[in-house]
Amino acid sequence: MSVILAADIGGTKIAAARVAADGGLGAGIVEVPTPSRDGAASVVEATVRLLDSLRGPGDEAVAISAAGVVDTVGGTVLGATSSIAGWAGTRLGELVSAGVGLPAWVVGDGNAFGLGLALEYGAVNLVALVAGTGIGGSLIVGGEPVLGAHHAGGHLGHAVALEAAGMVCPCGRVGHLEAVASGYGILAWYHAQGGDPGVTTTRELLDRPGDEVAQAALGVGGSALGAAAGGLVNAFDPEVVVVAGSIARAGDPWEAGLRTSYTNTLIPAVAGTPLELSTAGPETALRGAALHARKHHGAAAGQIRRTALGGRNEEEGGA
Amino acid sequence: MSVILAADIGGTKIAAARVAADGGLGAGIVEVPTPSRDGAASVVEATVRLLDSLRGPGDEAVAISAAGVVDTVGGTVLGATSSIAGWAGTRLGELVSAGVGLPAWVVGDGNAFGLGLALEYGAVNLVALVAGTGIGGSLIVGGEPVLGAHHAGGHLGHAVALEAAGMVCPCGRVGHLEAVASGYGILAWYHAQGGDPGVTTTRELLDRPGDEVAQAALGVGGSALGAAAGGLVNAFDPEVVVVAGSIARAGDPWEAGLRTSYTNTLIPAVAGTPLELSTAGPETALRGAALHARKHHGAAAGQIRRTALGGRNEEEGGA
Repeated sequence: MSVILAADIGGTKIAAARVAADGGLGAGIVEVPTPSRDGAASVVEATVRLLDSLRGPGDEAVAISAAGVVDTVGGTVLGATSSIAGWAGTRLGELVSAGVGLPAWVVGDGNAFGLGLALEYGAVNLVALVAGTGIGGSLIVGGEPVLGAHHAGGHLGHAVALEAAGMVCPCGRVGHLEAVASGYGILAWYHAQGGDPGVTTTRELLDRPGDEVAQAALGVGGSALGAAAGGLVNAFDPEVVVVAGSIARAGDPWEAGLRTSYTNTLIPAVAGTPLELSTAGPETALRGAALHARKHHGAAAGQIRRTALGGRNEEEGGA
Repeated sequence: MSVILAADIGGTKIAAARVAADGGLGAGIVEVPTPSRDGAASVVEATVRLLDSLRGPGDEAVAISAAGVVDTVGGTVLGATSSIAGWAGTRLGELVSAGVGLPAWVVGDGNAFGLGLALEYGAVNLVALVAGTGIGGSLIVGGEPVLGAHHAGGHLGHAVALEAAGMVCPCGRVGHLEAVASGYGILAWYHAQGGDPGVTTTRELLDRPGDEVAQAALGVGGSALGAAAGGLVNAFDPEVVVVAGSIARAGDPWEAGLRTSYTNTLIPAVAGTPLELSTAGPETALRGAALHARKHHGAAAGQIRRTALGGRNEEEGGA
C-alpha cells in the first residue's frame, strides 16, 4: 500500500493525514496549532513532529501544502504571509524531508486546494476562487496547477472589479476584486457606505437582516466575485468554476449577487459552465498536495530507475 | 528535411507557407483572398489549391490556423465568425487532408498566433492579447495553448473593464473589455462621448490630434486593455504578456494609457513582467500552427510506430 504523508501548514493550524492512492484519509485528520509567533523553525519542527506521529507501513513520501508563495521545484518558501514569522526563505521541503526521513514535495496551499477540488469534481480544467480574509485561488489546466514564471500563479483576487472602483486593495493597488469581494473588502465597502462603525467583522454582517447597508455590501461583494468568475471562465473555459473559502457560506443576498453577475458575464460558448459553492475543508488541500507529491515522486523515481538501468528516456512526438 | 505546409485562414485572406523544423519559411508566404461569400466549400477548395501550389520534398503534414472556434482533436469548426458563410460545422481537417493527401492538424487562429509568439519570445508561459476589430488572444501554459472544455479558451476580451461600465459588448453582454478597448469599442466610446458623427472608423481617430474626444477614446481604450493585461499577469504569472493586432499600432496616447494602467495593476510578485507590443504578421500564426502540427503529428506517428512494433508506451510517473 502506497501512502503519502500530507500536511497543510496554515497561519493558525497545521493539519495532517495519511493519504492512500485512492484519496482515502485512513485514520482521518490530525491538527495542531501553528506556532506562528515562534518562527519558521518551530513551524517546521511542529510539522515534522505531527507527521512522525502518523508514520506507518507503505509511507513513500511527504506532501506539504504551504501558505505563501512557494517554489515547487526547490521546496522553498519565496513570499510569506505575514502570519508566520520568518517564513520567507524557509527551505521547507529540505527541512521536513530531513526530519521525517522521506522525500518531500511542497506546493502552495491555493494550488493544493485546486488540485483537491479537481479530484473531487473529476475535472481536468478547473478555476478555484477562494474568498476568505483575502481572495486567492488556483487555475488547473490539463490536471496541473498554473504555477507561473515566478511561482505566483493563482493570484485571482487582483483583477479589475467594477464595484471596487477607487477602493484600495490590501496589495496596495486600487480597484482590485479583493478590495471589495473578500472578507476585508466587504467590510470596507460597508464602512465606506456609512455602515455601523461598531461592526468590526464580516461575520457580523450576516446577522443584520434589517441593515440595508450590510445587505448591499454582501450583494456587491457577491456581484464583483461573480463577474470575475465569469471573466475567468470566458478566458479559460474550464469544466467547472468553484467558489470556496469562508465567504462561500455568506448565504443570500451574497449568493444572489454572485450567480446573477456570473450568468450575465458568460459568453455563449461557455454559457453552461457550472459554478459550484464548496464548503471543502482541510481534506481537500491534503488530497491535492498528496496528488502533487505522488505525480512528482513517481516521475523522479522513474528517472532514477532509467538512469540506473542505463535505459533511454523514450518520449513521444516532435518530428 | 521535414516540412509542414501551413495555412492561415482568415475572413479576408488565406496565407500559406512551407515551414521548416527551425521555423524558416522557405520561399516565403503566399496569399489569396478568402472566397468568404462563396461559402465554406469554396474556402476549403481555395486552401487546398494554395497548399498544392507549395508542395515540395519532405512535406510531412498540413497545419491550419483557422478563424472561429475550432475542435483541435477532430479538426472541425465549431463556432463561426460571421465573415465566412456556412463556416460552422465544416470538417476542415478531414477535407483539407483529403484534398492535399497529407495528415492535417487544425488549431484556432488565436492559439496559432499565441504559439508563434511563444516561439518568437522563447517563452513557455505567455499571455497574448490581440486587439483588432474585436479582442481575442491566447493563454500559453507550459508551451501549450489553453484550449478549454468547449474549445473556447482564449476569449480574453470578455472580462470586466471599469471603463466599459454600461457599454454593450458585441457578444451581447454589458461591461466587457471588448466593448471599450477593441477597434469597435474605441469608436463606440468616442461617439458616446459626443465625438464627430462623421468619423466612422477607428483608424480615423489616429489622425485627429486636435480632437480631444478622440485622444481620450484612445487613452481610455489603452487604459482598459492595460488593466486587463495586468489582471491576467497577476493570475497567470507568464514570462511575458504581448499585445498585438491593429490596435497595437495606435501610438500615444493609447500606449501611455496601456502602460500606466498595466503597471498600476501588477502585484509585487510579478511587477517586473514585461509587456511587449507586437506588430507580428501572418508568419507568426503560420509558425505557431506548424509547431502545433509538428508536435501532434510526431506524437501520432510515434503511437503508430509503437503499435506496429508491438512496443509498450513507456510513461513517466504515478506511484
